[in-house]
Amino acid sequence: MQDNTGLGRIAIVGLGLMGTSLGMALRNDRLATYVTGYDASPTVGAHAHARGAVDVACNTLAEACAEADLIALAAPVLALRELLPAVARCAPERAILTDLGSTKAEVMAWAQTLLPRPERFVGGHPMAGSERSGPEAAQPDLYRGCIWCLTPTSTTDPAAITAVTGLAANVGARVLRLDAADHDNAVALASHLPLLAAAALMRAAGQSENWSLAATLAAGGFRDTTRVASGDPRMARDICLTNASPLVAALDGYIAALSVLRERVAAHDTNIEEEFRSARETRAEWLAKREGV
Amino acid sequence: MQDNTGLGRIAIVGLGLMGTSLGMALRNDRLATYVTGYDASPTVGAHAHARGAVDVACNTLAEACAEADLIALAAPVLALRELLPAVARCAPERAILTDLGSTKAEVMAWAQTLLPRPERFVGGHPMAGSERSGPEAAQPDLYRGCIWCLTPTSTTDPAAITAVTGLAANVGARVLRLDAADHDNAVALASHLPLLAAAALMRAAGQSENWSLAATLAAGGFRDTTRVASGDPRMARDICLTNASPLVAALDGYIAALSVLRERVAAHDTNIEEEFRSARETRAEWLAKREGV
Repeated sequence: MQDNTGLGRIAIVGLGLMGTSLGMALRNDRLATYVTGYDASPTVGAHAHARGAVDVACNTLAEACAEADLIALAAPVLALRELLPAVARCAPERAILTDLGSTKAEVMAWAQTLLPRPERFVGGHPMAGSERSGPEAAQPDLYRGCIWCLTPTSTTDPAAITAVTGLAANVGARVLRLDAADHDNAVALASHLPLLAAAALMRAAGQSENWSLAATLAAGGFRDTTRVASGDPRMARDICLTNASPLVAALDGYIAALSVLRERVAAHDTNIEEEFRSARETRAEWLAKREGV
Repeated sequence: MQDNTGLGRIAIVGLGLMGTSLGMALRNDRLATYVTGYDASPTVGAHAHARGAVDVACNTLAEACAEADLIALAAPVLALRELLPAVARCAPERAILTDLGSTKAEVMAWAQTLLPRPERFVGGHPMAGSERSGPEAAQPDLYRGCIWCLTPTSTTDPAAITAVTGLAANVGARVLRLDAADHDNAVALASHLPLLAAAALMRAAGQSENWSLAATLAAGGFRDTTRVASGDPRMARDICLTNASPLVAALDGYIAALSVLRERVAAHDTNIEEEFRSARETRAEWLAKREGV
């Protein structure tokens, strides 16, 4: 019998936006033999099941992991500290573990100390998401075309890397292997700084005496610049707590760039145009490169 | 003969994104008797004509304005200082003038001192646009559903207010009359601060040692948070030069909000979640109100 289910039995732990989208991608394209799921909230689990993301939404972590070949942890980063050892206790010895967390250095350190077989764990982070959260926001094509970072170490089992690479590639992602610390420095700039920039913009706007009228006038520019501020606050907190040092460096660079603009505005500096010209050029180069990949 | 061209003869000065979109809206729906256009660049004028925005793209400002009932100045703010008296010299006495500039207090002051008949000028600012510029980016429905600010003074001719209100309403905008200083304070927060936040984010990112890898990983969040940084640098410069004081106040509030986040990240403050929760709530309230209008 022809079997197109090369990924085996997969367990997804955490059935929010990321986990449910992963399950939908796997089951829509029949990429796995069987997909079990578990979420701390039974309501969320039922919702993910209703969306077709899992064959079964289990009542316990142990049930979900008992027969799994590959276990994907799709929970906010800090939850992984408890989940990693808990999953190790109930998973088969053969099981390969991965995660979809936003930061990687701390997760890799936890895996090293908390897992009996850290060589079977491959840290992962798909560069995909949405400001919406929960299984209701999930989309089976969420990962299509995105970059999926993997951060194996020198001691990671090559078979584990192959398996997790297969998972990411099968749902349409482009796998990029990199060092966990490099990953965290880069996402501090590419992903976490925009999140904090957007949240601070909403905070500053909401606290201003001019907000009432500004809220009436705010249009597409304000909407897009603040979009990611509508994301899950707990995920944002965990990012701050597990990527503090790279994020502080990124924030310092950002505040410095804003302070330069602030001084040039206050000085009525007509050459301030060069700041906008340079920003536009850098963004155009980025967009051009991005389309090329 | 039934005449659906209640707006009379209209001249559009400046045929970039805003002017060309206005002309397309007017001519697509046959809202004006005749639409003349003028742009300092003949190439831009020809392009606007090719897109159907004007009946004729004139070679001189005088030609475009000679027979106009209503003249709309769609140029970057600082250009208006020269355009206002130049237009007054070649327009018929009866002509009503308006502009589509991003800031209003300085424009209203220029009109008062530079126009022989300032009572025939109604300052305007449609809250619509795009990070793209030029006639190629124009859309006939750009103004549909947007708020179009008008900032008449106590001495503005009511007939002029009626005419410019008619122009805005006929292209689908919702007219909001307000004080020029109130407008400038509100757009500093709603529109100019997001622009500078986005430009500074691109500057900080591009200057970081982590940019190369970050550029590879940056995805939808980075794209949207920086979108408006791709806008016209000259327009951005003119905004800074003509709305400096409200913009400095907005930037100070923003830098303060970012500094709070920076300190809480550096301190590994688990309660930082409340910042994100509050930002998300303010944005949700804003979106809900926005959908209601």
